Amino acid sequence: MSNTNFVKEIAGIADDFPQWYTDVILKAQLADYSPVRGAMVIRPYGYAIWENIRHELDTRFKAAGHVNAYFPLFIPESFLKKEAEHVEGFAPECATVTRVGKEPLTEPLVVRPTSETVICDMYSKWIQSWRDLPVKINQWANVVRWEKTTRPFLRTTEFLWQEGHTAHADAQEAQDETLQMLDLYVEFCRNILAIPVLAGKKSQKEKFAGAVDTYSIEAMMLDGKSLQAGTTHFLGENFAKAFDIKYLDKNNKLTYVNQSSWGVTTRLIGALVMVHGDERGLRLPPMVAPYQAVIVPIATHKAGVLDAARNLSAKLQKAGLRVFLDERDESPGWKFNEWELKGVPCRIELGPRDLERGEISVMRRDTLEKSVIKLDADVTSPECHCEKPATKQSQQASGTVSEIKALLDKIQRDMYTRAEQHLNSNIIQARTMQEIESAVNAKKFALSMWCGDPICEKTVKEQYQATSRNMPFDQTPIAGKCVCCDKPAKYKIYFARAY
Amino acid sequence: MSNTNFVKEIAGIADDFPQWYTDVILKAQLADYSPVRGAMVIRPYGYAIWENIRHELDTRFKAAGHVNAYFPLFIPESFLKKEAEHVEGFAPECATVTRVGKEPLTEPLVVRPTSETVICDMYSKWIQSWRDLPVKINQWANVVRWEKTTRPFLRTTEFLWQEGHTAHADAQEAQDETLQMLDLYVEFCRNILAIPVLAGKKSQKEKFAGAVDTYSIEAMMLDGKSLQAGTTHFLGENFAKAFDIKYLDKNNKLTYVNQSSWGVTTRLIGALVMVHGDERGLRLPPMVAPYQAVIVPIATHKAGVLDAARNLSAKLQKAGLRVFLDERDESPGWKFNEWELKGVPCRIELGPRDLERGEISVMRRDTLEKSVIKLDADVTSPECHCEKPATKQSQQASGTVSEIKALLDKIQRDMYTRAEQHLNSNIIQARTMQEIESAVNAKKFALSMWCGDPICEKTVKEQYQATSRNMPFDQTPIAGKCVCCDKPAKYKIYFARAY
Repeated sequence: MSNTNFVKEIAGIADDFPQWYTDVILKAQLADYSPVRGAMVIRPYGYAIWENIRHELDTRFKAAGHVNAYFPLFIPESFLKKEAEHVEGFAPECATVTRVGKEPLTEPLVVRPTSETVICDMYSKWIQSWRDLPVKINQWANVVRWEKTTRPFLRTTEFLWQEGHTAHADAQEAQDETLQMLDLYVEFCRNILAIPVLAGKKSQKEKFAGAVDTYSIEAMMLDGKSLQAGTTHFLGENFAKAFDIKYLDKNNKLTYVNQSSWGVTTRLIGALVMVHGDERGLRLPPMVAPYQAVIVPIATHKAGVLDAARNLSAKLQKAGLRVFLDERDESPGWKFNEWELKGVPCRIELGPRDLERGEISVMRRDTLEKSVIKLDADVTSPECHCEKPATKQSQQASGTVSEIKALLDKIQRDMYTRAEQHLNSNIIQARTMQEIESAVNAKKFALSMWCGDPICEKTVKEQYQATSRNMPFDQTPIAGKCVCCDKPAKYKIYFARAY
Repeated sequence: MSNTNFVKEIAGIADDFPQWYTDVILKAQLADYSPVRGAMVIRPYGYAIWENIRHELDTRFKAAGHVNAYFPLFIPESFLKKEAEHVEGFAPECATVTRVGKEPLTEPLVVRPTSETVICDMYSKWIQSWRDLPVKINQWANVVRWEKTTRPFLRTTEFLWQEGHTAHADAQEAQDETLQMLDLYVEFCRNILAIPVLAGKKSQKEKFAGAVDTYSIEAMMLDGKSLQAGTTHFLGENFAKAFDIKYLDKNNKLTYVNQSSWGVTTRLIGALVMVHGDERGLRLPPMVAPYQAVIVPIATHKAGVLDAARNLSAKLQKAGLRVFLDERDESPGWKFNEWELKGVPCRIELGPRDLERGEISVMRRDTLEKSVIKLDADVTSPECHCEKPATKQSQQASGTVSEIKALLDKIQRDMYTRAEQHLNSNIIQARTMQEIESAVNAKKFALSMWCGDPICEKTVKEQYQATSRNMPFDQTPIAGKCVCCDKPAKYKIYFARAY
């Protein structure tokens, strides 16, 4: 779609990172601006990434015993007010429905910024006995938060996400769930998005409005800023008390449940762009790429080229790969540019000379390295055997398929390793305020000791525009005193500029 | 969840069909009422059905060349007014956001009742040349229509659906798409939901607001009412002109696109209940059932019972079946009732005597017939072999798995046949107004001839509360004159009471 007005030029990644980001989002057709302020359209190429993310996460949630459900988009305005911190955090951002057609509503309805309140209202009805616990429900939904400054994927007035909401018999179980889901997010980012993240606990100032404790995963973008990529919350009895969620325990005693909630959003797509991209555009990890390989046939008028390309495409698809055969009436160079911009992990070229030699030329997008892979004989034979029912033997015999698969595995691993090196080499132990300043100015994260006082947190933010990110689980101290004041340090914590 | 306060009693299906419907929805835990007027909560068991529906449809859409995308929830109020019929049809039902927090918006935003307008606005930007066509995008989303009378799944102020929106170079191609998608819905209803439908064209009075022509599929509920189960619309150039969607054709001439749109909703779950249910509750077709089989172990304290049940469950799951092993601390009779109410297609009982005999007792939910199936030896042996990597031979050798699969196939087919018989035996050719009256009073559809005048349509509606459903593609006349007036008949059309 829209290939005719496709423009390849994007800003330099080193010259103007924010403009580069916007250019890549728009020109790789991940998203577009919409007529509604701050809301984007997720275009098919971007949405296909989200579908892969969703599938991978959903499989993990279900394996961990969660089920999906769907709760209303609208929340009575009064519900939000039941949990004091919660309403304070969200009320100013809430889009509110006050009329239907021309008829005013008796009670205004808030478009959900998150669903704790309406879900807790249902839980208070559903949960009566210890036999009803635990409840482990997830929801895939759209939510609305009227942010002042917006950027595609990173901060939009509407976004897509999943929100898990669990209820447990006691605090320990709810805390365990909170940390297990954090682990799940870490594993997912590593193995699927090829993004290393720093997991830890948020400060009280940065926690979710209504939570006892919030944990986050933080990823480092190429410009050294942090992006909060997911959060899990231990809610304790806060919402249970506000919404009266009680159960009869095994001793017939009425007891409040303990809860957790957790979520990730379409902003993960922004993270993919800013962790893996380069001067040519996107570089997508094979595990989430809409197309893992694109086949560009060369000199398609020559005998056998298109047939072989189609045979190869069918064979790779049959092996479970996501492949696009680009038969469009454009030059190979034009296609190369487009697929590089769109970050397809592996490009396969197939022309008359390749055919003669019985091979294909393969370029991996992450390193731009080219290699040559031997083409299976059945791909080039006049009658293709691909459509015949494959015996186990013939499947194993395909060298081309297994070499492409091995290459994709290697690309996935290498992309993670590269991102991990970038992260590890850009964390600075900062023992003074000056060291924090140097770190963030050099596009790095500062790892510092902190007394726990929100005033010190605020001072760092005001002086260097760096916010506290989270406190890692490894709390081995690197100094005795707070980086900001002279009081004894209590926590090790990351500071960074952030999206 | 909520097993403790689970109540099995439901109203008699013959005595009070509407109450029976509500009881089944609530007690089988498909959905629950929410604190927002007319909006329901889709509970995990109901949502799992929707996930299966979505998966089956999505696979079909993609195979037919569609891609998914996501457009904003909010639509500027002015957009709705661009297509005259469209705004007339939808404006009174539109929930409207007028403020954020306490701040009023400069232009009110409508919560989408359908997305033609905002999607067409984007298409006018994306479509420039014949090379950009066709555009075939689908969206899975929530929509809001403030209906006065609501019922779970059938008519709710918010519902989930998919909406396809396509743009084509000419009218013929858009019309073809409109009919192809109707065919796709028919095939899906038949093979997945086991629901036979009547496909045809809507009258101009009943068409979608803004369409040139609307087609629908109509299903017959057990109470003889019709349920519109899906619609496809040929939009012609109506929206293209309102939103200025033009492209340069191959002769460099600026031309309006022609469009289609089409959708089905969560109301399909209501159709499943009302087409297949019986006095014990739900009966779900195996293709969409969250669990295709439930295993109820009997006398679990006896040696070997639980082990064998677990082995069998693992083996069936490995073969790709959706199975639930009910190990809960309740009596078998209690479990039988619950799974019958929840409509699980196949119940497997496994007790000490079954084990001795090397068999299981199987009840099919649709007919309540019981049969005995031989149990594979490896299920009952002390060391189960299920976890060992299966060779091709051992997989084929499993008689138990293939017998259960065959039974599920048969249940699926028989459920369709039964529904088809119900439909076919309840269509009456009505050549007079009295015959229409008799038909609808006897819970049947009337197939009649009609002159095409909306006044006759209105007369039938006012006299018998029966609306025109659609005009079948087979238009072989059954009479010469309109069923209502004396004018010559132009169309053959179904009249029925409807949800």
